[in-house]
Amino acid sequence: MTASPPVLPPDDLASLRASIDNIDVALLHLLAERFKLTHRVGLYKLANGLPSIAPEREQAQFERIRILATQAGLDPAWAQRFLDFIIREVVARHEALRHPPQASGAD
Amino acid sequence: MTASPPVLPPDDLASLRASIDNIDVALLHLLAERFKLTHRVGLYKLANGLPSIAPEREQAQFERIRILATQAGLDPAWAQRFLDFIIREVVARHEALRHPPQASGAD
Repeated sequence: MTASPPVLPPDDLASLRASIDNIDVALLHLLAERFKLTHRVGLYKLANGLPSIAPEREQAQFERIRILATQAGLDPAWAQRFLDFIIREVVARHEALRHPPQASGAD
Repeated sequence: MTASPPVLPPDDLASLRASIDNIDVALLHLLAERFKLTHRVGLYKLANGLPSIAPEREQAQFERIRILATQAGLDPAWAQRFLDFIIREVVARHEALRHPPQASGAD
């Protein structure tokens, strides 16, 4: 009797989707914490007269994310677009801290 | 002697950025696992003759992410754009599974 390879059950669509949904909950909560941190960065920059955009910091983040993506088996170009998608929102929020919307004249 | 409120150290930009970078590592590795799962979904769909896009599933995901975002203190509209950004990549990969690029004639 020879050892046979272990038999894995076939994928089940509902089970895969449940795992994807679990990951999305984790992603969303990490993003919520990330925006709390960048909000504090925004307040720090405002209090210290620093601009919203820090090109050198962004450049370092993009270089780092490309390396990390390769290590994690992700397309580095997609990972960079992903980070850019988040950073654009962060910069918009930092700008909004500087220029809060005018109160409406009505009411 | 009355109790004074605890004194918190002021934010330090380098420390905030180090925490943001740590979160980005976690986000990236969760995304890598998510793409592994969606790759298996893509293979499942291919093997079972199912289309790449499942509008009802997407609709359910968008509704769910909006609720989760609100609970986590995130803008639900942004969270939906975030999920859409990921899903568009997943659909592109599922399509690529169906139509692998033609081998080049050269060489």
